[in-house]
Amino acid sequence: MKSTQDYVKDVDSFLLRFLKERSNQLSEISPEAQELTEYILELALGGKRMRAQLCYLGYLYASGTNYPAIVTAGAAIEMFQTAALIHDDIIDSSETRRGKTTIHTRYQQQHQDENLAGSPEEYGIATAILGGDLCLSFSEEIFAQASELISETYEARKIFNTMRYEVMAGQFMDIHEETAFNEPHDLNAYERAFNVLTFKSAKYSVEHPLVIGAALADASQKDLQQLADFGLPLGQAFQLRDDLLGVFGEPQLTGKPAGDDIKEGKRTVLIAFTLENSSEKDIKFINSHLGDASMNSEELEKILHIIQQSQAPQRCETLINKLTAQSYDALAKLHENTEVTQELKTIAQRLTQRDA
Amino acid sequence: MKSTQDYVKDVDSFLLRFLKERSNQLSEISPEAQELTEYILELALGGKRMRAQLCYLGYLYASGTNYPAIVTAGAAIEMFQTAALIHDDIIDSSETRRGKTTIHTRYQQQHQDENLAGSPEEYGIATAILGGDLCLSFSEEIFAQASELISETYEARKIFNTMRYEVMAGQFMDIHEETAFNEPHDLNAYERAFNVLTFKSAKYSVEHPLVIGAALADASQKDLQQLADFGLPLGQAFQLRDDLLGVFGEPQLTGKPAGDDIKEGKRTVLIAFTLENSSEKDIKFINSHLGDASMNSEELEKILHIIQQSQAPQRCETLINKLTAQSYDALAKLHENTEVTQELKTIAQRLTQRDA
Repeated sequence: MKSTQDYVKDVDSFLLRFLKERSNQLSEISPEAQELTEYILELALGGKRMRAQLCYLGYLYASGTNYPAIVTAGAAIEMFQTAALIHDDIIDSSETRRGKTTIHTRYQQQHQDENLAGSPEEYGIATAILGGDLCLSFSEEIFAQASELISETYEARKIFNTMRYEVMAGQFMDIHEETAFNEPHDLNAYERAFNVLTFKSAKYSVEHPLVIGAALADASQKDLQQLADFGLPLGQAFQLRDDLLGVFGEPQLTGKPAGDDIKEGKRTVLIAFTLENSSEKDIKFINSHLGDASMNSEELEKILHIIQQSQAPQRCETLINKLTAQSYDALAKLHENTEVTQELKTIAQRLTQRDA
Repeated sequence: MKSTQDYVKDVDSFLLRFLKERSNQLSEISPEAQELTEYILELALGGKRMRAQLCYLGYLYASGTNYPAIVTAGAAIEMFQTAALIHDDIIDSSETRRGKTTIHTRYQQQHQDENLAGSPEEYGIATAILGGDLCLSFSEEIFAQASELISETYEARKIFNTMRYEVMAGQFMDIHEETAFNEPHDLNAYERAFNVLTFKSAKYSVEHPLVIGAALADASQKDLQQLADFGLPLGQAFQLRDDLLGVFGEPQLTGKPAGDDIKEGKRTVLIAFTLENSSEKDIKFINSHLGDASMNSEELEKILHIIQQSQAPQRCETLINKLTAQSYDALAKLHENTEVTQELKTIAQRLTQRDA
């Protein structure tokens, strides 16, 4: 079998070939759709391919041998991620993603530049809804192709289905959280933020891709469980790191503006920890300013100061360490497959100790 | 095999059972998601099941015998339609659907009523994007279940994939049309409107469900082509009738406000015909008022008057008759299967001569 680097290249080639073909078909119907598929392609090929890599490592761990099938499955997962990003960016009103303008923002700007009829915002949202829907359909189409290449896919299909609706439920919960925080203090803030993080990110970004890969190689239930035991806490630690970077990260490294998550109003574990350990006055300040996209730099600075003062970042670091240790313990229990477990360890380090 | 009426009931039971099960699973993650799945259920069970019926008739025509599989496939198509409706209603800013409040509007109102943090509009859009995404995923999940029940699904899967991306491309073209009509006159308006109608509706609503059903029964390429020859013009006539009803329909029968399509700014064949045969002044009036949701009743009346005066409704009726005749010709060429062809004829009449 090929190296993870080669695998990622093959997933990219698959996506490129697939999207070029679809782009041609779509352009025959609607010439304007070609531009959309180009945006999709740029986004689809722009990521780190973390999920595809995990899917591949899960497959290798379970001694899978059908290389074309696992390339196809990895492409399906990355295409799903592309769909999720496009719709997420509408939901979060994000203007940039990976340092580039988001799809709904591009169309909104295009509408303004060309002085078209109707509302630029609505046009941006409408086109990006369809763009995400296309990617969701493509993802499924590709996963079905993978299924055709492998005889036993019942379990993998089940996890793929679960992955999709769980991440959507996590996302739904997240939206709800962002709107429901008008009360000054909330005892369950931490539990709920941790729940969002688990379903919206940890399971989806780490556990599920890994386990889908293993299931495609017909792994035993015990192997699937052990991989999940490794993947879930790793995914949680990964997202906690992401939340810290979303507030304190270096914009040039993260590709996101400074304090982006604060302006978006994300109700993360970091914010929950902050609220648990701040004065009534500071809590009030945070609750009334979090999510205000137009806040000025003093207000942002003040929120960052309150967060620091509450020791919330340190508590997040402690939690990251605890979860990472849990993940390493599970890794140590995996059966002998030195090459794969070594790679999983490298990925675990990268996911929890990164700065971008 | 069962009657079409019984089949529709079985598709409904399938959807009810499936969504109840998913609702329970989703509620364990996010209790708020239960309400969403109830809205989805209400919408999914509210339609006429035209697509499922056509899928069933295509299957029967090709002598399919696996009843559970075709119930499952019909449910997948109806679930896709539910997803399309939810996202369409965001895109068109529609407040009602089938006489009931649309999902994004419900959440927007809920946000206002409960005085939640953030923007009610954005909350409504975000929840409905996720609601549609859930339905898209469910649709795929159900279609994959159908595939597992049948040995040869390659062709049906291919058409299912084509159906999805073609309807999205048609929708994309439609959005583009609605924004690009700032010019006073456009020679290709008819061709483009007819193209939108073909991909966004005719193929998706009639041709594809019928042909997917037949493909699931392993029909020959010749049979698939003949069914498509019947379904495409029928679908086109169906949508032309829909466009007429969207402008001149009785609100109590259609479940839509009077002149709804005019306020939405739909660039239909009816409008294209109107523009081809109106004075410069009237063309200007239409181009500057179409899509203005806040137009008053005099403005609406004036547009209706211009449309009538241009003879556009009559031209639409003529086109409907021509396409219906084309569809009947194709029907006459289908091989002997009296019961099914009789039902197809009944459906054809219903789709082209309805008032709701």
